[in-house]
Amino acid sequence: MKVEFQFDFGSPNAYLAERAIPGVERRTGVKFDYVPILLGGIYKATGNMSPAESLHGIKNKPEYMALETQRFIRRHNITTFRQNPFFPVNTLMLMRGAVAAQFEGMFEPYFQAAYHHMWEDPKKMDDVEVFRAALKSSGLDIDRLMARAQQDDVKKRLIDLTTDAVNRGAFGSPTFFVGKEMFFGKDQLRDVEESIVEQMRQPAASIA
Amino acid sequence: MKVEFQFDFGSPNAYLAERAIPGVERRTGVKFDYVPILLGGIYKATGNMSPAESLHGIKNKPEYMALETQRFIRRHNITTFRQNPFFPVNTLMLMRGAVAAQFEGMFEPYFQAAYHHMWEDPKKMDDVEVFRAALKSSGLDIDRLMARAQQDDVKKRLIDLTTDAVNRGAFGSPTFFVGKEMFFGKDQLRDVEESIVEQMRQPAASIA
Repeated sequence: MKVEFQFDFGSPNAYLAERAIPGVERRTGVKFDYVPILLGGIYKATGNMSPAESLHGIKNKPEYMALETQRFIRRHNITTFRQNPFFPVNTLMLMRGAVAAQFEGMFEPYFQAAYHHMWEDPKKMDDVEVFRAALKSSGLDIDRLMARAQQDDVKKRLIDLTTDAVNRGAFGSPTFFVGKEMFFGKDQLRDVEESIVEQMRQPAASIA
Repeated sequence: MKVEFQFDFGSPNAYLAERAIPGVERRTGVKFDYVPILLGGIYKATGNMSPAESLHGIKNKPEYMALETQRFIRRHNITTFRQNPFFPVNTLMLMRGAVAAQFEGMFEPYFQAAYHHMWEDPKKMDDVEVFRAALKSSGLDIDRLMARAQQDDVKKRLIDLTTDAVNRGAFGSPTFFVGKEMFFGKDQLRDVEESIVEQMRQPAASIA
């Protein structure tokens, strides 16, 4: 069974959700595929917008969303998260970097470093010099990665993954797929886990 | 501990959430207070709008919300729900009726009848003759109820409950309060239940 976590480094909700994935993997024995997508591309293709935009000017709802985030952080004991003062950060470079890192077999350290510099020790990661210095400080071979990230197959792969996500029903971040079943939002991680368990029990049904 | 279910008969999500409340009551031993509010008033006071409006024109998101609803219905084994073809129904009369029914000690039969005629055998319940005939057919003393619903204390009570909901953070339907903790949406019923259990364990913390 294929379980996907579609992420854009610019989404704090994807960061928070990701912190809970290792627990789901441990309990279910399933490994998640990490799929880079461009959230800006998904918003453009669907006409959807970020919560920051859609909640603007509405009373009570933004405060409640902040409360839900605090509850999620408490529930999952997340101590590392810090709001990025440069939000929203354009993530084109970061996400091409993620695809390049997957191609080059350096995804795991790149992923952890990118999240660290976005949401743990937050920086203006759409500034190329900040980006380069931050990832270098985390021990990444940043020159190799940045050169690779500029190649056409990387650019095309990111576009294809984003288009594919939209074609399969995505409209925001984070999005999960458990087989063909889509789940949206960090608050649905319990449903993701239940769906994994259910589909493992009934392998025939998950194909149907 | 006070646990509140704030409802407007016009909200299908409140109907669906309510079907799951008896289970929560059984498992926790806590009875929910049913609090009538006017969802239109909450939208007006907060600048929020119904999902039907806010999702209009967005690709994939309305389809996902429909899928979530189907999942909720399946999870809770709800067999009674039918979309109301007259949606959105103006619920001022229905909600004044709910307050009047609470004042007159006939809330339980009124509540079940109102939901039946909105979401099980759906009718145009903002048409006064349809409203009267429907509730009469359910055995309600509709003349007494409608006369009571026109009195000032009923009208004022509905306004006060709605204003109070907004002042405490509400912006949509359904909204739950467990003590001071607010929860929004049918998908947070598990969190409602967890909060009840947690606050029963730590009575001091729930007062703080």
